[in-house]
Amino acid sequence: MMEAPGITLRCEDCRRAFDEMYPGDFCEACGGLLNAELVLDPSSAATLRGRFAERLRDIVRGGADGSGVWRYRELVLPSAARDEIVTHPEGNTPLLSRASVSAWVNVDGLLLKHEGHNPTGSFKDRGMTVAVTQARRAGAAAVACASTGNTSASLASYAAHAGIPAVVFVPAGYVAMGKLAQTLAYGALTLVVPGNFDDCLALARRAAAELDVRLLNSVNPFRVEGQKTIAFEMLQQLDWRAPDWIALPAGNLGNTSAFGKALREARALGLIDRMPRIAAVQAEGAAPFARSFAGDFAERPVVVPDTVASAIRIGAPASWARAIGAIRDTNGIVLSVSDAELLEAKACIDASGVGCEPASAASVAGIRSLRRRGVIGAGDTVVAVLTGHLLKDPEVVIEYHSGTASRRRGANPPVEIEATIGAVRDALKRRSLNRDALRGDDLAPDAGA
Amino acid sequence: MMEAPGITLRCEDCRRAFDEMYPGDFCEACGGLLNAELVLDPSSAATLRGRFAERLRDIVRGGADGSGVWRYRELVLPSAARDEIVTHPEGNTPLLSRASVSAWVNVDGLLLKHEGHNPTGSFKDRGMTVAVTQARRAGAAAVACASTGNTSASLASYAAHAGIPAVVFVPAGYVAMGKLAQTLAYGALTLVVPGNFDDCLALARRAAAELDVRLLNSVNPFRVEGQKTIAFEMLQQLDWRAPDWIALPAGNLGNTSAFGKALREARALGLIDRMPRIAAVQAEGAAPFARSFAGDFAERPVVVPDTVASAIRIGAPASWARAIGAIRDTNGIVLSVSDAELLEAKACIDASGVGCEPASAASVAGIRSLRRRGVIGAGDTVVAVLTGHLLKDPEVVIEYHSGTASRRRGANPPVEIEATIGAVRDALKRRSLNRDALRGDDLAPDAGA
Repeated sequence: MMEAPGITLRCEDCRRAFDEMYPGDFCEACGGLLNAELVLDPSSAATLRGRFAERLRDIVRGGADGSGVWRYRELVLPSAARDEIVTHPEGNTPLLSRASVSAWVNVDGLLLKHEGHNPTGSFKDRGMTVAVTQARRAGAAAVACASTGNTSASLASYAAHAGIPAVVFVPAGYVAMGKLAQTLAYGALTLVVPGNFDDCLALARRAAAELDVRLLNSVNPFRVEGQKTIAFEMLQQLDWRAPDWIALPAGNLGNTSAFGKALREARALGLIDRMPRIAAVQAEGAAPFARSFAGDFAERPVVVPDTVASAIRIGAPASWARAIGAIRDTNGIVLSVSDAELLEAKACIDASGVGCEPASAASVAGIRSLRRRGVIGAGDTVVAVLTGHLLKDPEVVIEYHSGTASRRRGANPPVEIEATIGAVRDALKRRSLNRDALRGDDLAPDAGA
Repeated sequence: MMEAPGITLRCEDCRRAFDEMYPGDFCEACGGLLNAELVLDPSSAATLRGRFAERLRDIVRGGADGSGVWRYRELVLPSAARDEIVTHPEGNTPLLSRASVSAWVNVDGLLLKHEGHNPTGSFKDRGMTVAVTQARRAGAAAVACASTGNTSASLASYAAHAGIPAVVFVPAGYVAMGKLAQTLAYGALTLVVPGNFDDCLALARRAAAELDVRLLNSVNPFRVEGQKTIAFEMLQQLDWRAPDWIALPAGNLGNTSAFGKALREARALGLIDRMPRIAAVQAEGAAPFARSFAGDFAERPVVVPDTVASAIRIGAPASWARAIGAIRDTNGIVLSVSDAELLEAKACIDASGVGCEPASAASVAGIRSLRRRGVIGAGDTVVAVLTGHLLKDPEVVIEYHSGTASRRRGANPPVEIEATIGAVRDALKRRSLNRDALRGDDLAPDAGA
């Protein structure tokens, strides 16, 4: 057994140190975010690689060693004992190659790291398994978040498994029942609060301060530790050969931050011998980070977000400073894509048989944009992270393929036919003429079906 | 390498034999179903087990060896070359233990085999990876099905990956766009045909006969071969120790048949040393097989199906004779559960943080019923197969937890509160009083929240 020294939580602003059982997400002295510091021993890279490989055999057997998060536990939460770990298990997501998507972005070496294949359908499970494990270790009476999307679904699932109540705060004006289905099903106490999202978060913070409810924000250091394992697992799948680029959907910037930390640690340990470049891709209507990047991060703009991609519809990203570090340390780039580009990328990923949530497609749309500008080379190895499953947002699919408004590129509406064999033959013929719609090179709306 | 002799397709009625490239699902002489016969060598059990264990390392690397279907390829489609295989990959689904669900059924040794963690969210992917692989090997110009549910989603996904057009026939009166979202997204040509489901299937059959479209019905022998791997994988996860019982949701009886075949083969090969008993669980409103079982299968009733569990809403199951064989060969049992029992089982599975599609919960509801009747013992090891993901049917979740009709047991509606810390405290208190609602012992509707 490797020694399990635990981690130190250090304030990213005033550098004050806290024990890993410290219950807050913020420094009690200055309010800064807390960073989980691991003791890294560069001489252990080969040992770690061997151990990570060994544990692959336990994937179908389940338990902590079978998890794509806890397989890397020395780099996540080394002090957690096996029986303290709350695991579904999660992770073990595929790294896919699909010719039609490669052709669409014009990069042969494109790979799709599909985080939608986590238990609740999104990458959030990787952070939640660690944050809920730690909350239970620290004796929290309940865990909470303010969200109506993937975060609350994942929180509710892991809290249920841990046997801790989950509380989800939802602003009264913003409740869409469909988005709450998983949260309600997994048994979270869902509190509908008068006011807007800020009022909601304020109440959640008071509950955290006064009721021993642990608020598991996206800035929670243990959620970041869990999310790092997307990068570790991807690198293991590539036999620890770093790709040239990693493209990420970017909203609240939690993933950009987590990838930055993971890659710094992997490089420091010698698990990889060079840094991949991060491309953080925002939706045009919610792109404060991309705008800031263009001015070398001198400004921190806040926008009123507007995009079809709800999972990255964020106007004031929480993990701002961390994400700047991630971009700088990886010689990264931040860009934005339009909703039309993003939806066309999604249609292409969906039509390959893989499928994803709208926000996920930002990574693929961003790669196409960077390839066209010559920033990404034709021979580069590029990993696009897909953050959520197609089933997370069927409404966008239906609207895209059967909407009565302007027909979208590659739209695939149902076709009404007569019950004759000739009608079937004709439909198949028309279809084969239209099969290559998504291979085209311009983004203009397309009148054909 | 083990020899790859291929399989023989033999008519289950007249025993006529066909080559594995025979393109139909039915015997051309008598119209009987075709069974895939493998050459089984009992001396190879140890070799096979070792090989199956070896391939576990490839799970995160992807490809055929990393698939939970093709890992068992010697027992599925031994003649398929690696580069012919159309794999996402699929399978590698977890075998879960959850204390709250065990308590609800009163069986400590309950395990949940969760097939909802396949790529498209249901077990159908296991059959489709094999059927689409074989259709492409045999040179089919297109593949087709008549379905609006999990089958068409899976067909569309695998056909897209294979680069073969998929055609889905849908009866005009029965199109619910929400159920078609995956099918449209994955790019299947969706033909809306006037008439009912039978008219639709008749046209699909004509297309299969006249247009070189391969109809991949549930009775397709290669789909059965793929579905067998749920059983093989479960047995491998149990270190080849057979459980006492395996409970399956039963509608069209494809899974019951596939489990029967898999268990017979595993027993013949010596992979297991005794037969588990199969419990096939139907919904009360769609229970012709349960009714027939009660009369020792003397009758073959057809019913007008009516149940909330759409995936098993079948009045005239297609795999009837095969399923009888599965029940007889495993000393099995067939029973039915009411929609209320099934929905309470689903609420319990969901609230454990695992979640499933409504039909999946039939297996767990059936186990509770058999345990109460003393058929299943307290010390038995029992595997419940969950066939689909929670996200497959969010409407049923919303209806259950927030429906204005009679409140359901364990319902978890959103709670409106004032924006005060006292209101949060009160809601948490009320909640903890109601937490054990699903542990109760009667099925009467419950007025509390």
